[in-house]
Amino acid sequence: MSHQDASASSPSSSLSPVPVGAYDPPYYAVVFTSVKTQDGEFGEYGATNERMEELVREIPGYLGMDHAGSPGGLSVTVGYFRDADAVEEWRSNAEHLAAQKRGRAEWYQRYTLHVAKVERSHSFERNHRFEHGHG
Amino acid sequence: MSHQDASASSPSSSLSPVPVGAYDPPYYAVVFTSVKTQDGEFGEYGATNERMEELVREIPGYLGMDHAGSPGGLSVTVGYFRDADAVEEWRSNAEHLAAQKRGRAEWYQRYTLHVAKVERSHSFERNHRFEHGHG
Repeated sequence: MSHQDASASSPSSSLSPVPVGAYDPPYYAVVFTSVKTQDGEFGEYGATNERMEELVREIPGYLGMDHAGSPGGLSVTVGYFRDADAVEEWRSNAEHLAAQKRGRAEWYQRYTLHVAKVERSHSFERNHRFEHGHG
Repeated sequence: MSHQDASASSPSSSLSPVPVGAYDPPYYAVVFTSVKTQDGEFGEYGATNERMEELVREIPGYLGMDHAGSPGGLSVTVGYFRDADAVEEWRSNAEHLAAQKRGRAEWYQRYTLHVAKVERSHSFERNHRFEHGHG
């Protein structure tokens, strides 16, 4: 995560995104894969998403989030958490539950959620000739 | 990935992509998040990727793959496997190892790999009023 802050604030970087790094296992990865409806009302979708990003950062044990997607295509979001308690706190957050309900009612055609305990992780960074692994 | 090809080649495209569903846990999710180099030689990248997709389907216990990304942005690929043996077989496949080496040498600016055991999963599909959970 420190990489992210560093490159985001660096003027010489061309601001390429930085994936969440390899933490010491065990930790949790929550994989959310979704496809949006074609006829939904998305007026409040963006604001809701931003609010969820703000909220999740308040969860003790939240480690970071990776997101990729293209309009009309599959969207993949992976949230990382220190332990199962942190995942549960996020899952059962009242505002998050309300947003999930709205997502099912208005925004998502389909989605899958996989809650998984990371056993091994590894990261690579070219410029630093950096390679770092756990597990 | 085949979903994406299908929707990319379909002009009328109501072929929206379908995320991999919720399997009975435990199973494994291998999360690969990457950012490509800006000055790499990508002439053989597409063919190598296609070959890897072909190869991974031959691994007994391979369950599927989700991918999302945008040009110049973060790319997130999640491969699903029945058990740790299947993950290991894919990880140690000779042709895959050669492709990984090439990825570090030529294509990736940075990446992170998280190998995780899925403990709980859930899927939702709107048209079928389908909601299905495990764990």
